[in-house]
Amino acid sequence: MKVLITGAGGFLGGRLVHALLAGPADLPPITSIVAADTLAPSVGDPRVEPRTGSIVDPAFADSLVDDEVAVVYHLAAVLSGGSEADFDAGMRVNVDGTRTLLEACRARGRRPRFVFSSTVAVFGGTLPAVVPENYVLLPETTYGIGKAIAELLVGEYSRRGFVDGVACRLATVTVRPGQPNSALSSFVSGIIREPLAGIDTTCPVPLDTPIWVSSPAVVTRNLVHAARLDPLLLGTRRALNLPGLSVTAGEMLDSLERYGGREARARVRLERDERVARAMCGWPAALDDRRAIDLGFVRDSSADAIVRAYAEEQAAR
Amino acid sequence: MKVLITGAGGFLGGRLVHALLAGPADLPPITSIVAADTLAPSVGDPRVEPRTGSIVDPAFADSLVDDEVAVVYHLAAVLSGGSEADFDAGMRVNVDGTRTLLEACRARGRRPRFVFSSTVAVFGGTLPAVVPENYVLLPETTYGIGKAIAELLVGEYSRRGFVDGVACRLATVTVRPGQPNSALSSFVSGIIREPLAGIDTTCPVPLDTPIWVSSPAVVTRNLVHAARLDPLLLGTRRALNLPGLSVTAGEMLDSLERYGGREARARVRLERDERVARAMCGWPAALDDRRAIDLGFVRDSSADAIVRAYAEEQAAR
Repeated sequence: MKVLITGAGGFLGGRLVHALLAGPADLPPITSIVAADTLAPSVGDPRVEPRTGSIVDPAFADSLVDDEVAVVYHLAAVLSGGSEADFDAGMRVNVDGTRTLLEACRARGRRPRFVFSSTVAVFGGTLPAVVPENYVLLPETTYGIGKAIAELLVGEYSRRGFVDGVACRLATVTVRPGQPNSALSSFVSGIIREPLAGIDTTCPVPLDTPIWVSSPAVVTRNLVHAARLDPLLLGTRRALNLPGLSVTAGEMLDSLERYGGREARARVRLERDERVARAMCGWPAALDDRRAIDLGFVRDSSADAIVRAYAEEQAAR
Repeated sequence: MKVLITGAGGFLGGRLVHALLAGPADLPPITSIVAADTLAPSVGDPRVEPRTGSIVDPAFADSLVDDEVAVVYHLAAVLSGGSEADFDAGMRVNVDGTRTLLEACRARGRRPRFVFSSTVAVFGGTLPAVVPENYVLLPETTYGIGKAIAELLVGEYSRRGFVDGVACRLATVTVRPGQPNSALSSFVSGIIREPLAGIDTTCPVPLDTPIWVSSPAVVTRNLVHAARLDPLLLGTRRALNLPGLSVTAGEMLDSLERYGGREARARVRLERDERVARAMCGWPAALDDRRAIDLGFVRDSSADAIVRAYAEEQAAR
């Protein structure tokens, strides 16, 4: 089976490439992966074909999708901070880029499974404690608007039979290794990652701020699962609330302390950042993920497990 | 006050031009109206400037919006039948055209009131008997998708301060005079208009199919009202369920019979059209329009009043 991944040079993209190469159960053997990004990753496996370019460019998008591509993972995006800072870039990549890629699939006429990474940020306004899957999309960020429009496009291109789409609303992925990124939620990883590396950092939101999170391992596993979902079970509702854990910033810090001790926690100073706090308070505290669970997606067991898994992975490097 | 109307050559556009020229109470005097359409109307009033072109063309859209335009009515659209038959035309006009016009407003930096004519067709899937304003948008037509995306754009361009937008979800406008149009709901006017003109016609849906309707006079009055709504009262929820009446096809025919007699009703033959019936059954039977009523929008009193007003207007021509 041939797979295309956009945003393959990103953190999730990279994990997904490796997960697919490992040959997940229930998926046909992966014959090749087109790994596209504005700076394509070099993976060092003959099955991976790196492709550098922008999906906003129709010629590039067209060149990515051939008759053999059975699954498209569309992860490329301008993140929440970047989209808020540069409206045009956010709209161009998150809206126009998605449409260009959908058009490339449509032009081939092979109706690939199209897995789109959406976000909890499609929700906004006054939200119930647990947001149902069919709650109104009222995003309050340019990032959320772009993703909401892209969800509608994925749904419509599926209804018209151009692709077989699934929009997966991902929780905030934590703990991400490496450097902070331009997501407004970047601190959710930072408050665990930096202290465990002996670095002081700040928590920009109040400790009782609830956050909907998922570990990189669970998100990757769920993205793999999305490739093999039966379209009959999806029906016309192509957007899915992927499973997550609802934890507060304080609970994450409690887990940090249990794993890394008091000195780790002492490295996190509370310092409110209005821009971040406002965005996080507008995002859902929890999503109703029962349909996804019924469809075979999985969730993390606890904040402790997320912190431990991250620390052990880092130690093993 | 200078006003721009796209789709000014259409039925609603034409009525709106005349309503504005008549000088509605509470609106500043209308100094000029830019009446744009793919075939601009000739109105014969020196205040009306007809402009022929397509809003999909950025140069044309730019030329429509100058520093004096205080209110933009964006009515131009490919209707539901046309969008379903030609996906690309529907997306180009309803999505790209709206964005191009919003961009033209943004480029001027004057933040005009932007009144967008949306539709009940933004709703779909399993619907409650009365659809709340913040119900999920799950359209099941290309027309509905285009309008839903445009609503999101109007909301976001308002949030960013590029325009001061209001998306008005119009009910099915009935009774429209003249010829059938490409809307799937065209028959809703046809089953009244044709019999009253002595012409046989068909009703393509079961008699108990509920339809959310509004008369041309009420819709026009509500569009005028949308120009002067206080943005503070709108807040971040820029999409409004405009008032309507929930009537069944059978109730409309009962009104027809009360006004035009048995022989009028006998001119309507039941002949199911699967394409129309499927679309109508997917649209809401009624919307929760309480917020719009609170904001000063009005609704029709009864199906009888709608039929009578139409017949009297025709008789007066």
